[in-house]
Amino acid sequence: MSSSPLHAIMNPSSIAFVGASNNFAKMGTMQCLSLIHNGFPGDVLPVHPKEEIVLGKKAYPLISDLPYAPDLAVLVVPTGLVPDMLEDFGKLGTKYAVIISGGFRETGEGGRYLEGRISDIAQRYGMRFIGPNCVGIINTQLPLNLTVASFQDYNGKLGIASQSGTYVTQTLPYLHKHGITISKAISVGNGTSIDIVECLKYLGDDEQTTAIALYIEGISRAGDFLEVAREISARKPIVAQYVGGTKAGARAGLSHTGAMSGPDYVYDGLFEQAGIIRVDTIEDVYKIGWTLASQPPLEGPNIGILTNSGGPGTGIATTCNRHGLEIPEFSDKVQKKVKQFIPGHASAMNPVDLTFHLDMSIMADKIPRILFDAEEINGVIIHGIMGTAWMDMMFSAVKTMINVSREKFLKLGEVDLDNLIKMPLEYKKPLVISSFFGEEDHSVRVFNENGIPTFESPEKAGRAMAALYEHFRIKNRPHDEPNDVAMPENVKTIVDGVDTEAFDEYTAKKILRAYGIPTTDEALADTLDDALNCAHSIGYPVVLKICSPHIMHKTELGMVHLGIKDDESLEKAFNSIRDNDGDSAILVSEMLTGDREFMAGMSYAPGFPPCIMFGLGGIFTEALRDNAIRLAPLSHNDAISMMESLSSRALLGPYRGMKPVDMDAVASMLEALGRLALDFPQIREIDLNPIIITDGMPKVADALFVK
Amino acid sequence: MSSSPLHAIMNPSSIAFVGASNNFAKMGTMQCLSLIHNGFPGDVLPVHPKEEIVLGKKAYPLISDLPYAPDLAVLVVPTGLVPDMLEDFGKLGTKYAVIISGGFRETGEGGRYLEGRISDIAQRYGMRFIGPNCVGIINTQLPLNLTVASFQDYNGKLGIASQSGTYVTQTLPYLHKHGITISKAISVGNGTSIDIVECLKYLGDDEQTTAIALYIEGISRAGDFLEVAREISARKPIVAQYVGGTKAGARAGLSHTGAMSGPDYVYDGLFEQAGIIRVDTIEDVYKIGWTLASQPPLEGPNIGILTNSGGPGTGIATTCNRHGLEIPEFSDKVQKKVKQFIPGHASAMNPVDLTFHLDMSIMADKIPRILFDAEEINGVIIHGIMGTAWMDMMFSAVKTMINVSREKFLKLGEVDLDNLIKMPLEYKKPLVISSFFGEEDHSVRVFNENGIPTFESPEKAGRAMAALYEHFRIKNRPHDEPNDVAMPENVKTIVDGVDTEAFDEYTAKKILRAYGIPTTDEALADTLDDALNCAHSIGYPVVLKICSPHIMHKTELGMVHLGIKDDESLEKAFNSIRDNDGDSAILVSEMLTGDREFMAGMSYAPGFPPCIMFGLGGIFTEALRDNAIRLAPLSHNDAISMMESLSSRALLGPYRGMKPVDMDAVASMLEALGRLALDFPQIREIDLNPIIITDGMPKVADALFVK
Repeated sequence: MSSSPLHAIMNPSSIAFVGASNNFAKMGTMQCLSLIHNGFPGDVLPVHPKEEIVLGKKAYPLISDLPYAPDLAVLVVPTGLVPDMLEDFGKLGTKYAVIISGGFRETGEGGRYLEGRISDIAQRYGMRFIGPNCVGIINTQLPLNLTVASFQDYNGKLGIASQSGTYVTQTLPYLHKHGITISKAISVGNGTSIDIVECLKYLGDDEQTTAIALYIEGISRAGDFLEVAREISARKPIVAQYVGGTKAGARAGLSHTGAMSGPDYVYDGLFEQAGIIRVDTIEDVYKIGWTLASQPPLEGPNIGILTNSGGPGTGIATTCNRHGLEIPEFSDKVQKKVKQFIPGHASAMNPVDLTFHLDMSIMADKIPRILFDAEEINGVIIHGIMGTAWMDMMFSAVKTMINVSREKFLKLGEVDLDNLIKMPLEYKKPLVISSFFGEEDHSVRVFNENGIPTFESPEKAGRAMAALYEHFRIKNRPHDEPNDVAMPENVKTIVDGVDTEAFDEYTAKKILRAYGIPTTDEALADTLDDALNCAHSIGYPVVLKICSPHIMHKTELGMVHLGIKDDESLEKAFNSIRDNDGDSAILVSEMLTGDREFMAGMSYAPGFPPCIMFGLGGIFTEALRDNAIRLAPLSHNDAISMMESLSSRALLGPYRGMKPVDMDAVASMLEALGRLALDFPQIREIDLNPIIITDGMPKVADALFVK
Repeated sequence: MSSSPLHAIMNPSSIAFVGASNNFAKMGTMQCLSLIHNGFPGDVLPVHPKEEIVLGKKAYPLISDLPYAPDLAVLVVPTGLVPDMLEDFGKLGTKYAVIISGGFRETGEGGRYLEGRISDIAQRYGMRFIGPNCVGIINTQLPLNLTVASFQDYNGKLGIASQSGTYVTQTLPYLHKHGITISKAISVGNGTSIDIVECLKYLGDDEQTTAIALYIEGISRAGDFLEVAREISARKPIVAQYVGGTKAGARAGLSHTGAMSGPDYVYDGLFEQAGIIRVDTIEDVYKIGWTLASQPPLEGPNIGILTNSGGPGTGIATTCNRHGLEIPEFSDKVQKKVKQFIPGHASAMNPVDLTFHLDMSIMADKIPRILFDAEEINGVIIHGIMGTAWMDMMFSAVKTMINVSREKFLKLGEVDLDNLIKMPLEYKKPLVISSFFGEEDHSVRVFNENGIPTFESPEKAGRAMAALYEHFRIKNRPHDEPNDVAMPENVKTIVDGVDTEAFDEYTAKKILRAYGIPTTDEALADTLDDALNCAHSIGYPVVLKICSPHIMHKTELGMVHLGIKDDESLEKAFNSIRDNDGDSAILVSEMLTGDREFMAGMSYAPGFPPCIMFGLGGIFTEALRDNAIRLAPLSHNDAISMMESLSSRALLGPYRGMKPVDMDAVASMLEALGRLALDFPQIREIDLNPIIITDGMPKVADALFVK
């Protein structure tokens, strides 16, 4: 833990602050004020050319005037001043910095040069820094706050790393309003010295952080990110939003933090493999993150729902079902217990629908306890605890009729929640609340203050509970390492021997076979006699194809002849190819008669290791685009999970009388493909399509490698 | 308009109220109080056995004591009393009622009987009623409010019909908080006399209602619903949530309003065909509904985004893209105008990112006007107008340093929005706001009060804008009627002649051909000689199949022989079938050699007319489940839209050298299938699979009809 530079940055005993003054219209001033106001316990040393006192602290005219080397330097100064100031701190012996100033790589060429300079300076002095182009960091435990906004909740739970500063400043009041507390928050900015991978690792190790929320515009070390994330997600939930996957998102992100983004489906694969719960809105980053951070784990899919109203109960139930949770009918035993407390016509089955009632202790204590206590139930969702806000709405009408004070009337709405808020810990089962009221309601305030997540739409409560179950499945999935297999002999010579951009099919398949990837049985022929000999040795029917690294679309050119059954047809096919191309070798290959076609491939995305793809193949490839991506190296279970995540996965099973596909055999192919890609980074693209399934076993029928 | 009973129910000049007293712990009392408190302008006549005055109004001991027949009767009484009381009102001459009382069909057998009784009574006296098992209705224009909660916003815009009462009562404070105003709201309850179809029609005709929001647990007149909805959606937006499509949702709905639900995909088809925007949360019902109700139409896909912060800007941009909107780079002309107002390093491309700045007039007036004024932009989304709530958060830190009053400090945060709120009407383009603050913020309050929708997550603002574009596309899609074609001659005799549950394939295809649906060329054979003759007349290759209404899985039984090329193979195949089945006729059919396989089908769901399905066929049918549903009768464009909504629609185009599928030919097949289903309701299931495409033209290769 202490090895992370973030540990030092989050826990300094002294901070020099350059860019704060006594002018409250300046960002730097507000940031230094947050630091002081939120109660940073160490020394704050403002550096200011003119002011003697800044925000009540003695200021120093120059960095070199500082009485000692502070643990951390904060820079909120014009871009051009950053390099020299960083150097001054380096000379002084300060090892860590937070560089708020923007204007670096996100602005183009000049900025990129400046960013390189600060990187060099830091390296020279052995310094590490957050930013530039960020809004700072928060540690609610120390406490420490370098952002322009103050936080209100100390010693929180959710760890945040964000490539947008807004999401650790502008949203602080929003988080407080929703009862969400932060452990540590990091505005990653351009991530020049400390990137999102290092932030993630730090939050993974941080004991105060019980779940991690990420906002991502682009990752430049996806392989390292994967390794770190999959280690963490096996024990601590991670939720993430990725916004760079669309045309507009990529452009907006580039001009924001200069992040290079990749397509959505590549990030889908990365997140799946890493065990990260992907969400599409910042609201879900926070609120699902908070549910994961605040609640005990959900250890099974069975949810009990309690409501005073059919609509929300049905909305919660249907959302839970859609996201993989069960709403089982309660056992007779549980129904009997519930029935003691509900009207005769109300439903005790699940959801329990209390209908209109006035005794809030039934909804907020008696029935919840029955549900928490039921072995058959793993988690509880309640909608309908209405407190003072409901009474307040009623009061506007009631006051016209009776003489009662607002205070007294609202008091009637203060529901006693003392027992309910303790139940999650007591029974080690999660509780999620749905209410159409917000912090204006006493009950919602009590839930917020006690770390019970509340949602203002019933469906969102259901969705959040489902995220807890997603984490349960991630935690319990098999965790295996990629096999460490040496590069096959002789392959390097073959690859090095290729001097064209594309590999010819015969060479490509020879390499595949060296990696243990089964392909069609085949041989090269120059003459008709050669071809006849090959065909006899392989056995009819065979396929004849032109084999040249220069011909990419051989089918369209009429240079593929399928299902050749005898010498006569072979001669005809051979001559037909030769008429068009007198030189290239001709491939004689066994004709596969399988019952299903898949495809596999390899490609790169910016900042990513080789991306391995598996999916539906043959003529459906482009029409259905049903495929999955994982990053190399692949473990066996990574490969299996690719198959399981296909929409058309039923085709892999025993389907319509066909033999089930040997998934281990396919997985081994995909693992080997990953090793091949890592062994030969000069190969930039691989396309194995179709992979034909015969008797349940896969064989590559066509292969394309491109450098 | 005046023909709807709802017009009378929403606009009574006198209301008799049975079930209100002076006890505020009673639902009926609260409901009558809302009526009075919200300012119902007509007479309120409480009926109460003991009280002489109820809520300040003279009460009558019995219904028969009422001085005249009120326009509307409201019943909030124990279930058992409802029939007699309804009869009393009938005798008096009252024609309309709202029956709040529950305990009817949703509780089982006894309740179903009682519901039948009130239905009979109403019919006898020519009465129409809302409910039972509902919470009442709201008309913010008259005004009239029969729910337990009071509303705050008069003369609103969004019309609501809900099968959950909660969504027109418990959520009233929520709606007010979000600036959403209601025109009319109807709690449909069990919909015994007036169902959701009639409510929808009324809201469609209501001039005050600018968009319609529906919460649905099940529709029992789906055909009528479709007809009404598609007429309305061509001019007024409809948004709907359907929750009955999952196991848990169906069970919860049944015990709630006794609604019969159908599978999700059937409702997907219904909503698509009806032009209804489907959403999955009640939050979206309201907030997307409100965006549609409050904003001018979006007339194109091009959105301009203005923000002070990269994260939200990127989130909005990527969400817009995902939902079919464009975030075009602004033209040089527009960028030049924008650049006058933004810092040098900020982006003027779209999103415009102002970054940190203090002059709110730039964000709230100057740049918005440039965007609204730009011809290339159809709608505007703004994130980052932060007002008093932001200042309030700052104040907690600032007050420790300087002596300024909270009022004075917050005043600095009051952004002048006078110009901005007028721009949508001025330019006839929609505006949507994203802000992490709620009604505690002055700016959000101003937006709410002026009908500008605000969202507390940037992505939701983007999603809501996309809904406006969905409505634009619905409005502009071709609106054609189903063709009115008479039943083909002789078909009735054929259908009536079938006395088995299933039709044999030959008969089924004969019926298809009568409807103009192309099938394989084929004939029946009893003897080998017959078969040989047929084969010669059809031409080899042919297919031989057993043809019996009793044999459903002929392929699995080895009774289908494909690709028979000559007399010898035919004889072998014939004998092989005869060895297993000595009696049934044998079908000799042309062997199609197409390049793609689709399927079509017909089935029923509770309360639905025949549901016509079209999708990917052949062996992929069950593995990919890529299909679309529409309700019969189908218009030509309904059928075309089914094809266009397939994930695999690329297969219909010119694909991999194949000829494009003749979509009009497929559409005609589907339209005819719909007519066939309507002509013969005794046929409950049709399965045409595969439909083989040869040279772009479809032909049915196998057909199954089941009664």
